[in-house]
Amino acid sequence: MWIQREIDLRARPRGFHLVTDEVVGGLPELRDLDIGLCHLFIRHTSASLTLNENASPDVRHDFATWFDHAVPEDFAWTHTLEGPDDMPAHVKASLTGPSLSLPVRRGRLALGTWQGVYLCEHRDRGGSRSLLATLWGE
Amino acid sequence: MWIQREIDLRARPRGFHLVTDEVVGGLPELRDLDIGLCHLFIRHTSASLTLNENASPDVRHDFATWFDHAVPEDFAWTHTLEGPDDMPAHVKASLTGPSLSLPVRRGRLALGTWQGVYLCEHRDRGGSRSLLATLWGE
Amino acid sequence: MWIQREIDLRARPRGFHLVTDEVVGGLPELRDLDIGLCHLFIRHTSASLTLNENASPDVRHDFATWFDHAVPEDFAWTHTLEGPDDMPAHVKASLTGPSLSLPVRRGRLALGTWQGVYLCEHRDRGGSRSLLATLWGE
Repeated sequence: MWIQREIDLRARPRGFHLVTDEVVGGLPELRDLDIGLCHLFIRHTSASLTLNENASPDVRHDFATWFDHAVPEDFAWTHTLEGPDDMPAHVKASLTGPSLSLPVRRGRLALGTWQGVYLCEHRDRGGSRSLLATLWGE
Repeated sequence: MWIQREIDLRARPRGFHLVTDEVVGGLPELRDLDIGLCHLFIRHTSASLTLNENASPDVRHDFATWFDHAVPEDFAWTHTLEGPDDMPAHVKASLTGPSLSLPVRRGRLALGTWQGVYLCEHRDRGGSRSLLATLWGE
Repeated sequence: MWIQREIDLRARPRGFHLVTDEVVGGLPELRDLDIGLCHLFIRHTSASLTLNENASPDVRHDFATWFDHAVPEDFAWTHTLEGPDDMPAHVKASLTGPSLSLPVRRGRLALGTWQGVYLCEHRDRGGSRSLLATLWGE
């Protein structure tokens, strides 16, 4: 079985956002897979996906603080045409990456108890973000 | 062919650990695949997986030194309830990532000569770690 | 359908290089896939792959500047036998990662408008780099 489906994530402010429910809700075919994979792919270069702690909002806040510190706007960037938040966004996007490959088992994402899908929005006004989800398995 | 299998990695101290043999040993079905993929997924948010140099223990030591420097315990964290090693562990986990997708060819992982699977243990006492391995191909 | 194919990327200087056309050109079977995945895997530990902005060379220049700053040669490395660019190369390789999983749709990589495949060459003289590409789908 192969399914490919676009999922539009609504615009969010710069930061790290838990989107597990929004993603799973957009993939009703998950329940038809006994064993397989779910590939989530973000079609942008200044937003990214990662998996991390799904409980405390403080964790997501601290992610933003650390990434802003490690990849600051005030740096020797040459590509500044699209604003001070643009080039840091590109680097942050590659540090976390554009995709997640998640195992599927008995109709569900086989995540650990504390794992959730983060949308990492690195622009101040990134707008809505387009995911391409691919499901395959049996 | 689809195989999904849990592999428990025994508890290890904080640091980077070569676990290729332990992982391959837990996947006897690898040898039945002529061409395919092996997806390794860690079901935790404060440990992660990466692929790197499989020869010198100094390399793994230097990984730990750099990550401790880049994501220090002494930082403006707000999520400190679970100890000083917890929040850095979450960020380090997302920098390396929760999964590896490895090509399989003629019954083996098609790794480069110098590539090995690292368990990245970011907690002081993380305990044993659970991997979910998924193999598929023909 | 399963295809596995080696792609040799010619030697490039240290830095971030756009290789989308070279990779796609090496995978003529892409056009036979209606829906599927393309897995690109670099068989080295001091070069890596990422996806980022495919237009401005300044972006790739800034990637190099930031990574050299964040993972400097002048650091408390113990593994220095293979030269000052070696250990930073290993860490940079794990920050970006050894593989990309890209969705395929109607015979093409389903990349976003601005996404391109980067070869991240972290050594001064890394030589040619070997990719193993795996395509599967229907």
